[in-house]
Amino acid sequence: MTRTLDPDDLAGAVLAGDRRALARAITIVEDGRHGADAIVAALFPGPDAAHRIGLTGAPGAGKSTITDRLVTAFRADGDPVAVLAVDPSSPFSGGAVLGDRVRMQAHVDDPGVFVRSMASRGHLGGLSSAAPKALVVLEAAGFPRIVVETVGVGQDEVEIAGAADTTVVVVTAGWGDGVQAAKAGILEIGDVFVVNKADRPGADETVADLRSMLAMGPERPWTPPVLTTTATSGEGVADLARAVDAHAAHLRATGAWEERRRDRRRAELAGALVDEYRSLVAGVVEASPITADVVDGRLDPWTAAVRIAGAGDG
Amino acid sequence: MTRTLDPDDLAGAVLAGDRRALARAITIVEDGRHGADAIVAALFPGPDAAHRIGLTGAPGAGKSTITDRLVTAFRADGDPVAVLAVDPSSPFSGGAVLGDRVRMQAHVDDPGVFVRSMASRGHLGGLSSAAPKALVVLEAAGFPRIVVETVGVGQDEVEIAGAADTTVVVVTAGWGDGVQAAKAGILEIGDVFVVNKADRPGADETVADLRSMLAMGPERPWTPPVLTTTATSGEGVADLARAVDAHAAHLRATGAWEERRRDRRRAELAGALVDEYRSLVAGVVEASPITADVVDGRLDPWTAAVRIAGAGDG
Repeated sequence: MTRTLDPDDLAGAVLAGDRRALARAITIVEDGRHGADAIVAALFPGPDAAHRIGLTGAPGAGKSTITDRLVTAFRADGDPVAVLAVDPSSPFSGGAVLGDRVRMQAHVDDPGVFVRSMASRGHLGGLSSAAPKALVVLEAAGFPRIVVETVGVGQDEVEIAGAADTTVVVVTAGWGDGVQAAKAGILEIGDVFVVNKADRPGADETVADLRSMLAMGPERPWTPPVLTTTATSGEGVADLARAVDAHAAHLRATGAWEERRRDRRRAELAGALVDEYRSLVAGVVEASPITADVVDGRLDPWTAAVRIAGAGDG
Repeated sequence: MTRTLDPDDLAGAVLAGDRRALARAITIVEDGRHGADAIVAALFPGPDAAHRIGLTGAPGAGKSTITDRLVTAFRADGDPVAVLAVDPSSPFSGGAVLGDRVRMQAHVDDPGVFVRSMASRGHLGGLSSAAPKALVVLEAAGFPRIVVETVGVGQDEVEIAGAADTTVVVVTAGWGDGVQAAKAGILEIGDVFVVNKADRPGADETVADLRSMLAMGPERPWTPPVLTTTATSGEGVADLARAVDAHAAHLRATGAWEERRRDRRRAELAGALVDEYRSLVAGVVEASPITADVVDGRLDPWTAAVRIAGAGDG
C-alpha cells in the first residue's frame, strides 16, 4: 500500500480485507479529508448481512466491560468483530472525552477484532457524520457484526446507538424506576435491555420494573428481553450475545431487517442535508438584505431566519 | 396578571418589571409555545446597557459556587442580577442534567436575584435557541448584569458562554498545562481567567502557565487578567467582580461593546437559520426525487445531500 493510493484504490483495498487500508479509510472519513466522500460513495452500501449492534446506557453502567465481554462471546464462532466507540467531544480535553482510553485490552492481539474510537460531534457543531460513514466502511470491510458503543451522556450518543439494527440498553441494578426510563425515551429504542451489576441490591426490582413498563407499552412483534449481567465476571454475557443474535434473526424473518436499512438511509440523508445547509448558512447570511436589519438591532434574528428560509434563499 | 394575557401584553408586563410575567415569558420561550416568537420580537433588542457575563469551565471547577459569590458581590451596589444556568440535556434523566439542583440557596429570599436553569439542546437536536431568546427577555426586564453559567461539559456550553460580552473561564489549581488550555480553545474565548481552589497545591503554577500562554498569543487591546479564588470561602471573588466590570468599561471605551452585539446578532441569525432549515429538511427529503435512490441503496446519503442542497431545494 503506497501513500499515493487514490480513493478508489483505497476502497478496493478495504473490500479486499486489507486492515491497514481500513484504518486509513476511517481516518480519512473521520478527518473529513479530501477523498472522504469518494471512499464512502465507492463503498456504499455495505453488504446487507452486516449486523449493527448499538450499545448505550448511562455513564458508569459498565458498557465498556460489556462490550469487551460481548466481543469475546461473538468471537467464539470465528467471525471477526468491529467495535466503534463514539464519545462526546469535550472542549476541555481537546477531543473525545475517552478517546485516549486504553480500550479492549483483552483483544489487542486478536487480528479478528477491530476497535476504533471517534467523537460524536463535528467541527461545525452538528452531530458528526463520521460515525455513520465509518459504519459504511466497516460493513464494506466484511464484518458480520459491528458493535457501536456510546457513552450515553447526551442525546447525540443515544441517537447514534438507536440507529443500529439492534439496540442494547444497559442500566445498572437499582438504577431507578421505570418512569425514569420512560421519560428518557429508552423504552422505545431498546431491543434488548441489560441490567448490569446484577450482584448488587435492587437488581430484581429493576428487572421487574423494566418488564412491567415494557408490558404497558404498545404491543410489538418483538418483545424486548430484560437480561441480567455481571460484566466484570462475564456472567450473563453469553445469554446477551444469544439475545442479540435472536433479534437479528427476528428482523430477517419479518422483513424488518431491510425496513430498518431503508429508514436509516432516509434519516442519514436528512442529517446530511442539515449539515449541507449548515455549511451554506454563512453565505446566506452574508448575501441576505435582511442581515443588516438584524445586525443593527431593528429585527430579531429568529423572525429574520423564518423570512430568509421562507424566501427560499437556502 | 390573567391567564389570557396575549404576547404583547406579556411583553409589556416584562418591560414594566413584573417578575411573574418575566418567569412566564421565559417558560413560553423555553417550551417554544405559541406566542414565543412574538414575545421575543416585541422585546428585541434589549437595552444596550445590559452586561452579559458568561461563566464556563470544566465540570467540578466550582462554577456554581463562584456564580453564587459573584452575585453577592454584584448585589452590593443594589442593582438586580439575573442568572441563566445552561445545562447539557441528558437522555437518562429526561431533562437538563442539573436542572433540578437546588441553586443559589443564598439568594432565595432576595427579590433582586432572578435565577433560571435551562437545557442547552432543543427538541430537534440542535443547540437550543431558548438561551439566546431568554437573554433577550432578561435584558428587556432591565437587569444590568446577567450571568450565564454553563457546566462546560460540551462544545455547546462553551459556545453559549463565549457569546457573552465578558467570558470568565474557570479552571482548577493544578488543572494541567497551558497546552491543554490552548487545545481546548479557551485561551481565545476568555476575557477573565480564574484559577479556583487557590488553596490547593499547584495554583501558582497554573496561574503562571496561563499567563505565559496568554502572553504568547496575539497582542490584544485587552489583556485577560488571571485571578485566583477560593470560592468556598469567597476569597478573591470581589476582585473577580471588579475585573468583570473593568472589562465592561474597556468594551464601552473602545467601541467593542457595540461591535460584540453586532457580531452576536449575526451569529444568532446564522444559528436561527440552521434551525429553520432543520425544520424544513423532512419536507425536502419527502419531496426530492433523489430520496428513493438513497432509500433503495443506490446512492449514498452524503452525495445525495450535496446534490439536493446544490439544486436549491432548501
